[in-house]
Amino acid sequence: MTDSLRLGVAGLGTVGGGLVRLLAAHADRLALRTGRRIEITAVSARDPAKDRGLGNALGGARWYADAVEMAADENVDLVVELIGGETVAKAAVEAALSRGKPVVTANKALLAHHGVALAAMAEKAGVALNFEAAVAGGIPVVKALREGLAGNRIEAVYGILNGTSNYILTSMAESGASFEDALAEAQKLGYAEADPSFDVDGVDAAHKLALLASLAFGAKIDFDAVHIEGIRRVSALDIAFARELGFRIKLVGTARSTGEGLDVRVHPVMIAEGSPLSHVDGVFNGVVVHGDFVDRMMFEGRGAGAGPTASAVMADIVDIALGVRLPLFGVPVEALSPARVMPVTARQGACYLRLSVVDRPGVIADIAAILRDEQVSIESLLQRGRAPGEGVPVVIVTHEVQEAAMARAMARIGALASVLEAPTMIRIEQIKRA
Amino acid sequence: MTDSLRLGVAGLGTVGGGLVRLLAAHADRLALRTGRRIEITAVSARDPAKDRGLGNALGGARWYADAVEMAADENVDLVVELIGGETVAKAAVEAALSRGKPVVTANKALLAHHGVALAAMAEKAGVALNFEAAVAGGIPVVKALREGLAGNRIEAVYGILNGTSNYILTSMAESGASFEDALAEAQKLGYAEADPSFDVDGVDAAHKLALLASLAFGAKIDFDAVHIEGIRRVSALDIAFARELGFRIKLVGTARSTGEGLDVRVHPVMIAEGSPLSHVDGVFNGVVVHGDFVDRMMFEGRGAGAGPTASAVMADIVDIALGVRLPLFGVPVEALSPARVMPVTARQGACYLRLSVVDRPGVIADIAAILRDEQVSIESLLQRGRAPGEGVPVVIVTHEVQEAAMARAMARIGALASVLEAPTMIRIEQIKRA
Repeated sequence: MTDSLRLGVAGLGTVGGGLVRLLAAHADRLALRTGRRIEITAVSARDPAKDRGLGNALGGARWYADAVEMAADENVDLVVELIGGETVAKAAVEAALSRGKPVVTANKALLAHHGVALAAMAEKAGVALNFEAAVAGGIPVVKALREGLAGNRIEAVYGILNGTSNYILTSMAESGASFEDALAEAQKLGYAEADPSFDVDGVDAAHKLALLASLAFGAKIDFDAVHIEGIRRVSALDIAFARELGFRIKLVGTARSTGEGLDVRVHPVMIAEGSPLSHVDGVFNGVVVHGDFVDRMMFEGRGAGAGPTASAVMADIVDIALGVRLPLFGVPVEALSPARVMPVTARQGACYLRLSVVDRPGVIADIAAILRDEQVSIESLLQRGRAPGEGVPVVIVTHEVQEAAMARAMARIGALASVLEAPTMIRIEQIKRA
Repeated sequence: MTDSLRLGVAGLGTVGGGLVRLLAAHADRLALRTGRRIEITAVSARDPAKDRGLGNALGGARWYADAVEMAADENVDLVVELIGGETVAKAAVEAALSRGKPVVTANKALLAHHGVALAAMAEKAGVALNFEAAVAGGIPVVKALREGLAGNRIEAVYGILNGTSNYILTSMAESGASFEDALAEAQKLGYAEADPSFDVDGVDAAHKLALLASLAFGAKIDFDAVHIEGIRRVSALDIAFARELGFRIKLVGTARSTGEGLDVRVHPVMIAEGSPLSHVDGVFNGVVVHGDFVDRMMFEGRGAGAGPTASAVMADIVDIALGVRLPLFGVPVEALSPARVMPVTARQGACYLRLSVVDRPGVIADIAAILRDEQVSIESLLQRGRAPGEGVPVVIVTHEVQEAAMARAMARIGALASVLEAPTMIRIEQIKRA
């Protein structure tokens, strides 16, 4: 057996604790697989005295208050960054790479913003910078895109990438609850943070999507060009109408390679009941990949939590223990293409439009005239309930339409006196089964 | 760029042709990923003159009639075995390994029967023997079990592993057709062979399952101890009753680690509508993995065909080009445990039982008495249709029951004068979502 692999673990929160427990449970099994003992020789955390329920699992490890200092410890061969954020975490990763130490990280925000620069550092140092745990938790989708599907030109990736949002949408669909009530319940159960904006506003999903897009297309993604919408505006009414129309509402990240550039966006979508991803419920994540030879692949699993995330972190550590070192995004940094991310206004696709209109003759005719003027073709129109002179919901499903035309139509419709609220629009996506 | 990687491809059938096309389409992309040109310098096929529609893609390659001779070609660095079967294929793989050349194969029969011996040869030679394409076509599930989920103790693997059977069952469910008619249609469409027994009798699925079990549990599997039943006895009536009871019928391979040994078996099962795998339809394959840290993971994709299989073969080639070499089943051969495969009679689980009985008073009482005597507890009983004095179907769903007791009860019930056919039994499995 060769020398042991000595880990320095920065951050002992949920994931760090999970990693410590995984290693305690499976040290022998891992030694068998890698031919090396994997051990934790150093940790960094703000409060060393805090009881983390880890017993003696960290017995011999040296404690640091400062992750950067820990990364420099000469008894650390590999730094596991589980701090999160972009300040200390970045400094710790850089400290490791600059000393020629490989890094495993679960930090999607860090890589979505600084991935290319850090990839260049890792390449220069000749060490691995692995991030399986940063995307879709326990699902080995980074490995699938970088290795398992390496023989394909990837055409599209679709993902339910944020468990909190998916939990909220699922619970709204099951109970008919409002967004606010479903969020409050998710917070009570620990599935949503006190400040949920990172999750419910789509930012976390967008970080993960940007990483998948870089991997899938070998491209540098300008994160600021990614269109991001969260789920706060999805109402119980929309979910009920979706069901009636044969759809489910999900927060989906889309990354497609098109002739005009990359189509990379995160927003609520309506997808047909029975299509891939439509059954991915609760805190689960799901990813669909279309490749030119493999056709359509789908992965599903837990996207967060101590166990699944620790599983992904350990897979990255095992690769390093085995001497596997691949470029961060599958190809060398100099080969990454500077991709053009298309504006969402370039989208062509069907839409769901919900209006609150005064229930009186002629209103639908006015709306239909505007849609006709803007070349928006109607596939179906539903009006539910009667309340003469008062507000009733009207739902319109369009055929494929240019997003810019849709926006113009919505502005004009919203300005009608008989339309009582700003229209709600949810894009309808076809995620093909094959 | 280092030296090119020179492939010798044994077998130019569907998969071989797909591989040639993949390489022609993506040679540059693959060179970028691996830092090496990958090229085909030799091929072996029975009839070199046959038009395979490959144009000039094989221009410079040397043709062999004999795969073993090809494996010895000094201009071949890596042998890709796509012949199938266990005679020539085995000789070609051994010829390559004995010369210290790595091998990529799609041959599940070969590995299910000779995997441990070939793994030992590869280990001794210090080269890789990769087989992603042997299981579940384009789905990178071998890589997932061997690498992506390496941090887990795997508890169970469930798979729909044979596209032909799944196509037939799906088409029976959709059209109400009989097995014979659905098979004939599948043969017409090219989804089933003229002699379909390998697929519909469960042997192909069992080969793949045995490989997954070896990988998942680090175990030597005695293939002859695996219980195998195919789908020939599944009737349109059973499929209709399954739907009425909220189930789907699928041919599922199960591999579970239990206190008494490994539970490894392939047979038709009823699984609840909505459970994982219940939506895997047509020629698609699906695999569910339960690990102690990752919890439940699910993979779905095309299990066969030129493109998906070539995608998997190329992933294995890319790993070798990158210098990655892992033990065949994840751990060194000497560490593989000699697993005890439990007999199917040890199964504990619910069952669906369909009888054809004479429609007259007292028959159900006789059957119920036998079930009581054998300690088989009834969850529900359905009798559909009335035809006094003639045969009508009766369906019984049991609670969890010992398989041996069930077999005794079935023998006694089948012997009743009022029971007109041998009873049909389909096991009900719970494949948990989490």
